[in-house]
Amino acid sequence: MRAVVVREDAFFIEKLPEPTPGPGEVLVKVRACGICGSDLHYKKHQRDIMEKARSLGAPIAELERARKEGVVLGHEFVGEIVAFGPDTAQTLSIGDRVCSMPFVLKDGAPVLIGSNPETTGAYAEYMVLTEALLLKVDESVSDEGAALVEPFGIAVHAVNKAHVGVEDTAVIVGCGPIGLAVTAVLKARGVRHIVASDLSPRRLALAKELGADEAINGKEESAVLKAAEIAAGGPTVVFENTGAGGMFGRIVLEAPQNARIVVTGIAAGDESFLPMVAITKELVASFVIYYTPEEFAEAMALIRDDKVVWRPLITGTIGLDDVAQAFEDLEDPERHAKIIIDPAK
Amino acid sequence: MRAVVVREDAFFIEKLPEPTPGPGEVLVKVRACGICGSDLHYKKHQRDIMEKARSLGAPIAELERARKEGVVLGHEFVGEIVAFGPDTAQTLSIGDRVCSMPFVLKDGAPVLIGSNPETTGAYAEYMVLTEALLLKVDESVSDEGAALVEPFGIAVHAVNKAHVGVEDTAVIVGCGPIGLAVTAVLKARGVRHIVASDLSPRRLALAKELGADEAINGKEESAVLKAAEIAAGGPTVVFENTGAGGMFGRIVLEAPQNARIVVTGIAAGDESFLPMVAITKELVASFVIYYTPEEFAEAMALIRDDKVVWRPLITGTIGLDDVAQAFEDLEDPERHAKIIIDPAK
Repeated sequence: MRAVVVREDAFFIEKLPEPTPGPGEVLVKVRACGICGSDLHYKKHQRDIMEKARSLGAPIAELERARKEGVVLGHEFVGEIVAFGPDTAQTLSIGDRVCSMPFVLKDGAPVLIGSNPETTGAYAEYMVLTEALLLKVDESVSDEGAALVEPFGIAVHAVNKAHVGVEDTAVIVGCGPIGLAVTAVLKARGVRHIVASDLSPRRLALAKELGADEAINGKEESAVLKAAEIAAGGPTVVFENTGAGGMFGRIVLEAPQNARIVVTGIAAGDESFLPMVAITKELVASFVIYYTPEEFAEAMALIRDDKVVWRPLITGTIGLDDVAQAFEDLEDPERHAKIIIDPAK
Repeated sequence: MRAVVVREDAFFIEKLPEPTPGPGEVLVKVRACGICGSDLHYKKHQRDIMEKARSLGAPIAELERARKEGVVLGHEFVGEIVAFGPDTAQTLSIGDRVCSMPFVLKDGAPVLIGSNPETTGAYAEYMVLTEALLLKVDESVSDEGAALVEPFGIAVHAVNKAHVGVEDTAVIVGCGPIGLAVTAVLKARGVRHIVASDLSPRRLALAKELGADEAINGKEESAVLKAAEIAAGGPTVVFENTGAGGMFGRIVLEAPQNARIVVTGIAAGDESFLPMVAITKELVASFVIYYTPEEFAEAMALIRDDKVVWRPLITGTIGLDDVAQAFEDLEDPERHAKIIIDPAK
């Protein structure tokens, strides 16, 4: 099968053997896979991550091996069942479209898909999934919508972690796909006021389409200060999705009393802040990256039932040959938000 | 009346006019007042705090004025009612002992006691309190116990903020009075396992007296790593009470998956940490300093009903003349934990 392998910071389109489903597993034909910010991050910062891990005394043998042997990325996928392995219940049928949380169970333990040399991700024609983790995709949902279940799962989780209520004023700092998905989920939850912030006019327009009441260019004004004004002492939640250096410390300085900060943005290095300010304001900071199976299923339901606006998020669909180019294109927020890979294209 | 004034980094014992209770206020004779870590901090770091505020562009006129005019510290107090101002309900009587959250209401707005030139704290023979905020002290409670209601209020709040449950493994990093009070409150709540950590053997012995299951010298071993081992994947909560430079970042590195970190320690400057590690572990950090009236009342009840061990915390009782010496003595954790001022002494 054809697959895109990232090895030593470069992409290679390669012919790999078609994987074989083991006990409890199914083989799926990948129908669509979103390019995630963390994929971009992995491609770009692999070496830095390894160096950082080394400096912290963390084991880096696995990181080094992945870098050398190569990884097939892709964890925001929808596939079509083409074969069942041994010991499968087969309550679903060949041809059914399925999503799954991005891991397989090996001896009962979860192993992430698309981040190590063994567990091939969805930048490929085929992949193996664990049958017990499959969620059937309703026929009303397009492949593109199904590929967004995973990032919307993160958004649902981020919103849940902050215990966001309808009386909250919410600030979205950074309108990448996760910030935009959080915006849509907040809107679906009926949150009082959503202030979105980004440096890109295109992203700000998208934020409005997905549900932001206000879209503020961070070059001109602080969305956090603006939201604090709007909240007028009421509950405020700030979603930091940029991972930009200095942003966390700045939010601590600008957030109002009792604000909750939810961090989804992956900053590459150290971040600093003033604990004295955080303490005086009694801030709570939640760092999030995962979601629960229930949250993943809720994301699927939000998309199926048209409770969230998601279509404007998708700004391109490409084949495997164009992945390298797409990674470059995604650097420009004026051009793209989410690009979907269709391996059949 | 006699009072201890801190002015330009030095203590002065002065004769001040006895304060007059205004409408809705009462005059109390101070019976006991604890020396709080934040009092030490104010005395020692006043200038740094002002410089930091200035560098952040925060208004410093009030800080400068307080420094010049002088402040009577003291917000962990119990007093005896000696006079009622006009427009008071007088449901309590002259001679009743009372505690209060450390602020007075001025035109309905709370003004902190013991941190500005106007609202005299309890390092004095007399002070004025707002009648509506008074909590009567049961006769079974000693003056020393009543003076501990305030720090125990902070401990109750810190424990509540972290939603600590009986299945949690708790780590107390720093066994100053707040860390020790948190230990006692966790014990009262029946928390599964409490690991206390400090550099001082005396403080570690106190932690055991107040309820720690284990007391670890931070010079020899990491209490956070030890607790993670004991928790074995179960819920873990880390209380950072030291305010020591680098401690927050270190806890982020050492905390197990899904740990909650509660920060009560007031670090003087910037602190840095690795957001990537915090995100991968889905940590939650709560910064705390206040408490609610309900939590203050709960602290009073815990002490009244002997639900918390608090007596070993008090390592000395002094008169107003000895405050300057006590501030020096408190620098040595082998000698002291909490010193109580008795202005009649």
